[in-house]
Amino acid sequence: MSQINASIDIDKRMYLQDISASKAHAHMLCSVNIISAADAKAINSGLDTIINEIQSGNFKFSTELEDIHMNVEARLKELIGEPAGRLHTARSRNDQVATDFRLWVRDCVDDQASMLAQLISVLLERSKTETKTLLPGFTHLQPAQPLSLGHHLHAYASMFMRDLDRLADARKRINQNPLGAAALAGTPYPIDRQHTTSALDFEKPTENSLDSVSDRDFALEYMSAASICAVHLSRLAEELVIWTGPQFGFATLSDSFSTGSSIMPQKRNPDAAELLRAQVGKIAGSFQSLLMVMKGLPLAYSKDMQEDKAVTFTAADTLSLGLQAMAGMLEDIAWNREAMRSACDRGHLTATDLADWLVRELGMPFREAHYVTGRLVRLADEKGTQVSELGLNELQSVEKRITHAIFDVLTPEASMASRKSFGGTAPERVSEAIDRTRNQLLLTMKAFGSQT
Amino acid sequence: MSQINASIDIDKRMYLQDISASKAHAHMLCSVNIISAADAKAINSGLDTIINEIQSGNFKFSTELEDIHMNVEARLKELIGEPAGRLHTARSRNDQVATDFRLWVRDCVDDQASMLAQLISVLLERSKTETKTLLPGFTHLQPAQPLSLGHHLHAYASMFMRDLDRLADARKRINQNPLGAAALAGTPYPIDRQHTTSALDFEKPTENSLDSVSDRDFALEYMSAASICAVHLSRLAEELVIWTGPQFGFATLSDSFSTGSSIMPQKRNPDAAELLRAQVGKIAGSFQSLLMVMKGLPLAYSKDMQEDKAVTFTAADTLSLGLQAMAGMLEDIAWNREAMRSACDRGHLTATDLADWLVRELGMPFREAHYVTGRLVRLADEKGTQVSELGLNELQSVEKRITHAIFDVLTPEASMASRKSFGGTAPERVSEAIDRTRNQLLLTMKAFGSQT
Amino acid sequence: MSQINASIDIDKRMYLQDISASKAHAHMLCSVNIISAADAKAINSGLDTIINEIQSGNFKFSTELEDIHMNVEARLKELIGEPAGRLHTARSRNDQVATDFRLWVRDCVDDQASMLAQLISVLLERSKTETKTLLPGFTHLQPAQPLSLGHHLHAYASMFMRDLDRLADARKRINQNPLGAAALAGTPYPIDRQHTTSALDFEKPTENSLDSVSDRDFALEYMSAASICAVHLSRLAEELVIWTGPQFGFATLSDSFSTGSSIMPQKRNPDAAELLRAQVGKIAGSFQSLLMVMKGLPLAYSKDMQEDKAVTFTAADTLSLGLQAMAGMLEDIAWNREAMRSACDRGHLTATDLADWLVRELGMPFREAHYVTGRLVRLADEKGTQVSELGLNELQSVEKRITHAIFDVLTPEASMASRKSFGGTAPERVSEAIDRTRNQLLLTMKAFGSQT
Amino acid sequence: MSQINASIDIDKRMYLQDISASKAHAHMLCSVNIISAADAKAINSGLDTIINEIQSGNFKFSTELEDIHMNVEARLKELIGEPAGRLHTARSRNDQVATDFRLWVRDCVDDQASMLAQLISVLLERSKTETKTLLPGFTHLQPAQPLSLGHHLHAYASMFMRDLDRLADARKRINQNPLGAAALAGTPYPIDRQHTTSALDFEKPTENSLDSVSDRDFALEYMSAASICAVHLSRLAEELVIWTGPQFGFATLSDSFSTGSSIMPQKRNPDAAELLRAQVGKIAGSFQSLLMVMKGLPLAYSKDMQEDKAVTFTAADTLSLGLQAMAGMLEDIAWNREAMRSACDRGHLTATDLADWLVRELGMPFREAHYVTGRLVRLADEKGTQVSELGLNELQSVEKRITHAIFDVLTPEASMASRKSFGGTAPERVSEAIDRTRNQLLLTMKAFGSQT
Repeated sequence: MSQINASIDIDKRMYLQDISASKAHAHMLCSVNIISAADAKAINSGLDTIINEIQSGNFKFSTELEDIHMNVEARLKELIGEPAGRLHTARSRNDQVATDFRLWVRDCVDDQASMLAQLISVLLERSKTETKTLLPGFTHLQPAQPLSLGHHLHAYASMFMRDLDRLADARKRINQNPLGAAALAGTPYPIDRQHTTSALDFEKPTENSLDSVSDRDFALEYMSAASICAVHLSRLAEELVIWTGPQFGFATLSDSFSTGSSIMPQKRNPDAAELLRAQVGKIAGSFQSLLMVMKGLPLAYSKDMQEDKAVTFTAADTLSLGLQAMAGMLEDIAWNREAMRSACDRGHLTATDLADWLVRELGMPFREAHYVTGRLVRLADEKGTQVSELGLNELQSVEKRITHAIFDVLTPEASMASRKSFGGTAPERVSEAIDRTRNQLLLTMKAFGSQT
Repeated sequence: MSQINASIDIDKRMYLQDISASKAHAHMLCSVNIISAADAKAINSGLDTIINEIQSGNFKFSTELEDIHMNVEARLKELIGEPAGRLHTARSRNDQVATDFRLWVRDCVDDQASMLAQLISVLLERSKTETKTLLPGFTHLQPAQPLSLGHHLHAYASMFMRDLDRLADARKRINQNPLGAAALAGTPYPIDRQHTTSALDFEKPTENSLDSVSDRDFALEYMSAASICAVHLSRLAEELVIWTGPQFGFATLSDSFSTGSSIMPQKRNPDAAELLRAQVGKIAGSFQSLLMVMKGLPLAYSKDMQEDKAVTFTAADTLSLGLQAMAGMLEDIAWNREAMRSACDRGHLTATDLADWLVRELGMPFREAHYVTGRLVRLADEKGTQVSELGLNELQSVEKRITHAIFDVLTPEASMASRKSFGGTAPERVSEAIDRTRNQLLLTMKAFGSQT
Repeated sequence: MSQINASIDIDKRMYLQDISASKAHAHMLCSVNIISAADAKAINSGLDTIINEIQSGNFKFSTELEDIHMNVEARLKELIGEPAGRLHTARSRNDQVATDFRLWVRDCVDDQASMLAQLISVLLERSKTETKTLLPGFTHLQPAQPLSLGHHLHAYASMFMRDLDRLADARKRINQNPLGAAALAGTPYPIDRQHTTSALDFEKPTENSLDSVSDRDFALEYMSAASICAVHLSRLAEELVIWTGPQFGFATLSDSFSTGSSIMPQKRNPDAAELLRAQVGKIAGSFQSLLMVMKGLPLAYSKDMQEDKAVTFTAADTLSLGLQAMAGMLEDIAWNREAMRSACDRGHLTATDLADWLVRELGMPFREAHYVTGRLVRLADEKGTQVSELGLNELQSVEKRITHAIFDVLTPEASMASRKSFGGTAPERVSEAIDRTRNQLLLTMKAFGSQT
Repeated sequence: MSQINASIDIDKRMYLQDISASKAHAHMLCSVNIISAADAKAINSGLDTIINEIQSGNFKFSTELEDIHMNVEARLKELIGEPAGRLHTARSRNDQVATDFRLWVRDCVDDQASMLAQLISVLLERSKTETKTLLPGFTHLQPAQPLSLGHHLHAYASMFMRDLDRLADARKRINQNPLGAAALAGTPYPIDRQHTTSALDFEKPTENSLDSVSDRDFALEYMSAASICAVHLSRLAEELVIWTGPQFGFATLSDSFSTGSSIMPQKRNPDAAELLRAQVGKIAGSFQSLLMVMKGLPLAYSKDMQEDKAVTFTAADTLSLGLQAMAGMLEDIAWNREAMRSACDRGHLTATDLADWLVRELGMPFREAHYVTGRLVRLADEKGTQVSELGLNELQSVEKRITHAIFDVLTPEASMASRKSFGGTAPERVSEAIDRTRNQLLLTMKAFGSQT
């Protein structure tokens, strides 16, 4: 039973949040004359001692004392005696753990916002220098149209910007103060919840004491955002795995992010990318875990909710590792621009440009232009060449009205340059988008607390 | 293959969004002189005809035409001939489906915001009249402290308010216009994405064409919010199941929301509540489905993403049903106030009040007061009574300093009234919280489009 | 409420199972003299009429009658009058639906066993003719060692054999008869559960009536097996997507299993493979859904369990489609043997063979041989060639003792032929493995009922 | 990168399996003359030393050496020098880790089979003494029919028997030997896979080397079985939570399995039951994690698969804790038989018996008897009594033909005793079922390895 019940191995990780909240609580109790100034001072200094003990490795955690709250309180009693017993006035473990955990998730969100910002910055930096680098764009993993590499990288920056945005929104709901909800019903003591709210940098106190101790939405919402972010990491990781193999050869990972093989010395395995691809499993699984735990729990606190922390910590650690590893990988990765460019000569990448030319210059309805282009692609295939390499005669054998002007649109370079619609792959569009994203990043980061 | 490939049975549900987007696209193409005014007019009126045909049941959907886009376009060709072929200029099914689906999810979010608002209103209304109704508050499903029924109901209103907030935030990211991203790279046509953005009430065009066609975050984020909301429904449903059984007897469902048994004619089964409790499974499973589908997909569009709609529709339908059924159930439910009140006389519900009195009046440290209270509870148990029913002698046999004044805090009524901390269960606090929530609801609803 | 409560749209799909079970029940009731022979005959013939009506599309399903059981019973009453009322003697909807659903899942398992057998047969057939076809084996999507294509295909046959095995084991637990458990407690009527067990081809009656009506393990276990099978499909599908792109070019899908693009006429998109890759999301999500629904349900039947069928049907339909589409795709696919063979000349695929030669012939410890091989690979890389293309001088410049004999092991052909360990890629081993799997398939299929 | 790549913190837990497999491998290599007897002896004794070092806490694990395999091998080299380098001949980390992990999962399955057997034994023992103890049976958490408590407990024994059965079936597929598959293609060394198969108590070698290193079905299948088992634990846990609250009061947990409250000294919280109820979240989440990790991985080994162990260990630890805690809780729990019995006097529990009497004795069709019973229940409700308490006059006022004989079936005792159908709640049926389950348990346990 003690094995199943104790949570200290997990929740000791929140010692700083627990002690900060206790300090704020004691200060408030004193400010409204529930405890004396002397008691408050003793509590405060005892708690400072405990922080030092924990950080220097001299604190002895005890499983018998179950959790971080009781471990701290018991040690406080040893250190300062009777006043320690007054600290728990007008609070309960139910609101205490809710407060600690919210603070922890808020700090985690702030940290990961910084990591996301770093990852986005790397993506923007690397995309800025590659706005004119050509690579084949794929759909269905089939070559489709020529792209700017900068554009491709900026697509990921856009995804991670949404992740950042989601964290900013989640933070508003996380950053509310449940302290003072007590066990479930509030307290008859004349506490000042605004006081602890300010002291702990919360935005506001929670509105309903029952909800305050029963609610784990903040962890759920964080994990849902983390799951979506992890999907993005998995997609980029998949591309890196594909791109770094010899069949594509678009990129080379640095030695720090690839490994050899115990039996095949020639291998340069993209291990880090593969591990990043896998992480979404762990994070999404953690979210499902907590959803299932919370399903059907009557109000107010139930012990089931103690399972909230292990899964949230797993999700958070996994994502932190992933964000940092991805930023590192992208900082170091070398692009094989020639391989990318030469791949643009396969797969009739400018067939769409040809069709568009037919529409634009000859006034064909799109569907007819599509049909004519299809015939020309088949003709090129039969001749073992690319549609962009067909001669004018050959082109005219299918559609008489085609003129020499068409060759202006059939190169990958021309194709890329021509796609100037907002959000398109033309280098100047890409460059503008990068700048806008950089500005947006600065703005969005203001929603987060500064972390060191 | 046609069976696995065709999506018309699923995506025909987006016919209105598809046609709206096509009308906006045609209008824009005309405004920038890519198609003629005559063509635009023909397209517009042809599309209107199709809406009528579909809404009157006269449209013949074809599986061979695979999806809603081709079904509409093919019919348009029948109706207006050649101009139909110009509609697909400067767009692709990739940006078209992304646009349609975003519009659908946005409409769904607006609808469900209204349903949530209705549910919250019912909760607020019913809680307002029960701020002074006593029921035992539970933790661990064990009686803990006396509560206001209004407070209990308001806890759920608070949860659903967060759900509404999450939908409002998600809506900002949903409501961006991918139309014009074309297949993946943008288009060489001089399109005006701001035009379609305004026409379709989007907030802004998406920034990156590759991302625009590869992104399904909007569906994921909606489903993550729906999953958390469904957890709330499941918790309330669980309480209704427990409360309506004879052991608790706190509430009676109306006949509309309970059913009999084929073999046990006396049963009044809370079927609707049970079904609501189950819904979180389907919704969370749908979210997990799409996360898994998106995992590791390289850019840009892959056919895997076609699986996005079925699961999103399932989640959305399930949640809509749940929100409406819950509102209906709560409108009709009858509270058995006497049963609630008499349940407050079991489980020493005011033991905490006793402990608090010891702290407040006698200056005991909390932990000692806790110990004394424990002894008194055991004493009461031995005598087969409640701690609130002990005589002064008995109380003093454990702690001499207890005076007659203690009886003022030992009734459930006094306990409830005393918990006046912000967010606490004292009736005036509950009443204020209800008012604040009502005001907040009005404000939050402004984030949504008006739906009928 | 009727919308949330009615299940007829979903469960009418079990009409055949429902009626078969009713016929068996009526026959049993007659055999133990609970109903008369005349009643039994009337019931039987009425039920036959209903089957005909449903199959000819003349049955009018009613939502008011909620479910398939009441729809059938109500129609039976119209057809035969009073005896219809006796059919429900000694049973309840609780055991009735459990019986129907078990029969349905059992039939589904039998069907999918046949589909799996067909898929395995295609894999074995196609692998048998390719035991000597070389392709590069990958780990981490990096070329590793030469492989037999037959061996690669047989790996998937091995996975699907495990899936078949799992279905066979699950079937034992599915195929138990809950009929006669009544509402939850059994019945005072002198029923003969062995009678209905035999009539419905169940293996045995369930042991505990409470468990019988509360248990949905059979659906959970089926879906867990389906989830694992879908992972296998997703892996093969991913390989087909990668293989059919021009960068790999190992295979070409037939026109029936690939599609073009609305904007890029040259594309041959592996749509079917992509959809198969996605299916695991839907199936695993369905499993998760039902797990979550069942979590924490007290005994015996709760209405939550009505959600069991929709998700199981979704999982089953998805898997059936996937198994058949994969078999079809593999029947049609064309292997590009030259592309596979020529890919074996990249990536130093025989480096391991070189290392093994050093161990075997020179007695080097493995780790030292690994080191020497690494140096030779780097030498080859510097010279822009493959390690297998280095001259004897070059080889000896790193390790003097290397002799001309080493060239016997450095070709992909020699490498493949040499790996003769049990389960290895040497063609004769692969061929034997194929034969063993074929025999095993015949044996395993005996565990299933014959379906047509 | 080293942080993301290293797995030693996780996989050191498999040290015993890793070393056992290495010892078997070395012995085999010697038996087929790949290494000398002297080398084999040195390796064996070096590995024994390492086991001692690890078990005595004197082994220094190094993160730089990444995983358990390299940690052991590096230490072996320090201990015995050159022969250590020969141990890795004819194997790779790919087959090595697959072997270690299969052995670990097999051992885990054997351990948990014992735990399940212990839990089932407790259930059978406690149910055997309660075959005649009456409690209300619920459906929809509404009282339905009288039940034997022994029958109720036996329902859970039946569920856990299926779990045991599933583990036995999974074990067959787990217990196959991948050692010798080498990196992916087998090996040219003349190894004897049957030798290591016997030495490690595997049933047979795996058939396909590619599949051997790519397959994690054994972990998936184990976790799917664990997930279903955890659902059963959650259901029983939910019932214990409900039963031990004062509203039901059917049972009392021992002090070892309940806890007090920091603020409410009177509470006896069913913490252990609540934690057990929550565990299914973690276990099902772990299963989803690995499914998602494996989705779409091309053959053969990918680094993603390294994520297999953490989630499997989490699932396994959680289930082990749950099975043992549940057995402990049930050993200690006290049944409050009077509360159960008196609860049978609420809810018209014998209404079905009344209806059955009407059918049996008066020959009414079931549906009509149902209607009459419903009228009698309403009559009792109006009079504020139970249907079983109505007088003969009152009964006859609704149905004249009712005689005094009906009172024989209207007590809960009579109802329970009458349900003598196979699997029913009549005490003698329950007793027989318990005996059969006990016998079956002995048989099923033979499928597992003996663990100490």
